[in-house]
Amino acid sequence: MTDRHARRVESVRSSIREAGLDALLVTHPPNVSYLTGFTGDSSALIVGLDRVLMVSDFRFDTQLRDECPGLERHIRPSSRTLTQEVGAVIVALGVRRVGFEAASLTVAEQLALVEGVGSVELGGTAGVVEAARAIKDEGEIAEIRRAIAVAERAFREWRGGLGRESTEKDAADALEFALRRCGAVGSAFPPIVAAGPRAALPHARPDPAVRIGSEEFVLVDWGACLGPLPYRSDLTRVVATGKVSPSFEERYGVVLEAQRRAISAVRPGVGGAEVDAEARSFIAEAGYGRFFDHGLGHGIGLEVHEAPRVRIGSEDELRPGMILTIEPGIYVPDWGGIRIEDDVLVTPDGHEILSTLPRDLDAVRRDPIPG
Amino acid sequence: MTDRHARRVESVRSSIREAGLDALLVTHPPNVSYLTGFTGDSSALIVGLDRVLMVSDFRFDTQLRDECPGLERHIRPSSRTLTQEVGAVIVALGVRRVGFEAASLTVAEQLALVEGVGSVELGGTAGVVEAARAIKDEGEIAEIRRAIAVAERAFREWRGGLGRESTEKDAADALEFALRRCGAVGSAFPPIVAAGPRAALPHARPDPAVRIGSEEFVLVDWGACLGPLPYRSDLTRVVATGKVSPSFEERYGVVLEAQRRAISAVRPGVGGAEVDAEARSFIAEAGYGRFFDHGLGHGIGLEVHEAPRVRIGSEDELRPGMILTIEPGIYVPDWGGIRIEDDVLVTPDGHEILSTLPRDLDAVRRDPIPG
Repeated sequence: MTDRHARRVESVRSSIREAGLDALLVTHPPNVSYLTGFTGDSSALIVGLDRVLMVSDFRFDTQLRDECPGLERHIRPSSRTLTQEVGAVIVALGVRRVGFEAASLTVAEQLALVEGVGSVELGGTAGVVEAARAIKDEGEIAEIRRAIAVAERAFREWRGGLGRESTEKDAADALEFALRRCGAVGSAFPPIVAAGPRAALPHARPDPAVRIGSEEFVLVDWGACLGPLPYRSDLTRVVATGKVSPSFEERYGVVLEAQRRAISAVRPGVGGAEVDAEARSFIAEAGYGRFFDHGLGHGIGLEVHEAPRVRIGSEDELRPGMILTIEPGIYVPDWGGIRIEDDVLVTPDGHEILSTLPRDLDAVRRDPIPG
Repeated sequence: MTDRHARRVESVRSSIREAGLDALLVTHPPNVSYLTGFTGDSSALIVGLDRVLMVSDFRFDTQLRDECPGLERHIRPSSRTLTQEVGAVIVALGVRRVGFEAASLTVAEQLALVEGVGSVELGGTAGVVEAARAIKDEGEIAEIRRAIAVAERAFREWRGGLGRESTEKDAADALEFALRRCGAVGSAFPPIVAAGPRAALPHARPDPAVRIGSEEFVLVDWGACLGPLPYRSDLTRVVATGKVSPSFEERYGVVLEAQRRAISAVRPGVGGAEVDAEARSFIAEAGYGRFFDHGLGHGIGLEVHEAPRVRIGSEDELRPGMILTIEPGIYVPDWGGIRIEDDVLVTPDGHEILSTLPRDLDAVRRDPIPG
């Protein structure tokens, strides 16, 4: 294993020891990738106190050798399921208490595992690897910077070619193509391209029947997914299709100032709930409290939503190396939604905004989509 | 609910009664979509013997009203998780024994559910809705025909613009763009575009450093995903980049004949294992048995892999309305892989090959990728 992966495994081992376990069965694919660098799937990692072992199948044998030099491999015969084989490997390890990831293992898999491990005691764990993943190391920060740079380059390229006659679906497809041309494997998630009132729907899918020029503005929520490891970015901008109205300007200003205040609060030791409250209280004071009905942000990395949670009720505390979205919004039914989303790194003495696309009102006013 | 969805719910109710349950909790998203037409996520369906009820959140309230007219909705407050709310709804229903989908519910969700339902008895079920989904009704057959037509149109368009200088990654991106231009929401799965020896790797990812013209042939495995309900197609063709060699011709001929024999065996009452054996024994007789190391095929529909299984050990029996892939292959390390995949409907008196792209050797010979 590389030093980087050995360090990550060691950090997980501390948690295993603290929990009084002899090993942890890691089945959530991003967690397996994080601990080993493996980019395949259908494989499970067993992290013991002195051994680390990947259970996989013949399809991934060569890939595991290439991607995870020095990692012990156990290739199952095709006559046995992954879970059956994991059970047999656990028994052979001679361990007594093994943790599993309760948010990843299904009930059917748990039953098969219980059957397979005989007298070995199994116990559910929550968020062990996820807690380690929340703090990005230098290599990960570089990858996420790159995912942001690709998303921003793609946005500029896409923006330059956009016309008001384009439909939401065509515009979303064009953004996907721009992301790939700029070096992404693909979108970090299905992008949102929502015109006017549709931007107030929390889950708008790009509509092949809606022309973006038919409304005053378009909300775009997109990100790049890199490869071979799928590090992701997540950004939102609002683009005008002509001269914007006074009510747009007022609401845009509220969201922008809410975001500015929240970002200013980002530093080590502050709670995710506190950062959320900075934006939420400002939006409420401006009279739009009931129109901001989602959390302020979330961590990004190998998944587009990961720890920490930046929202009401979050008990996560910010620490250096975390990378989070800050994305306040106002959604007025039948009028539209405005959201501004940037990606922010928690640094030892504060924060760094990693995304660079202009977000001030002048930038929105200056450059409407041409007809 | 529409008649179509009411019929599907009735068929699931028979299974619920047979299992001695009072209700089934459906959490696997394609199963929820199948029974209701709902295209969102983060929602769970409770199918009781006389009521059907969707538990969801405010984000999907409007969408549920539009997509599922007449379906009873229960919108949870954002202070409670979906699983907590499902527990409360189950208690309020006054039922005694409730089944859940053991291959979908995680252990963490099960624990929360057990806590929520008090004295209601919970039991894992397997494949209840999946068994109903395996038999497509007329509307579904039409959707899958359309997914195949879009994939074939996109392939032709893509093929016409392809040059030997293209890399695997650029060619895969171009195929994605063609699929969307032809009406797909996107790919049914990440397409495989693998040149020469890379086509022998079971999980090749399109490589930005490999030019397709550098090898004798390219394997392309792709499909279209439609919307709003994500019905899918799944096809594979091999494309020559110049004059093909005698060993290519021999091996291509073996795979094609294996596929022809397997397709000929497709009819109601035949087992998935028997159809697999038709192709497998022919490939083995030709001396390539150890080079065909995956199942012959699988059902397609709302997921790209679903019931029935067409492989060694399958106990599934073919029935009219099933749609399956038939995809034998030969993978010779360091030489390359040949696979031919078509989508086949089981009809009352046999089968219908739904895909129409030419697959004979002449078609491969006739039309190599231009340099």
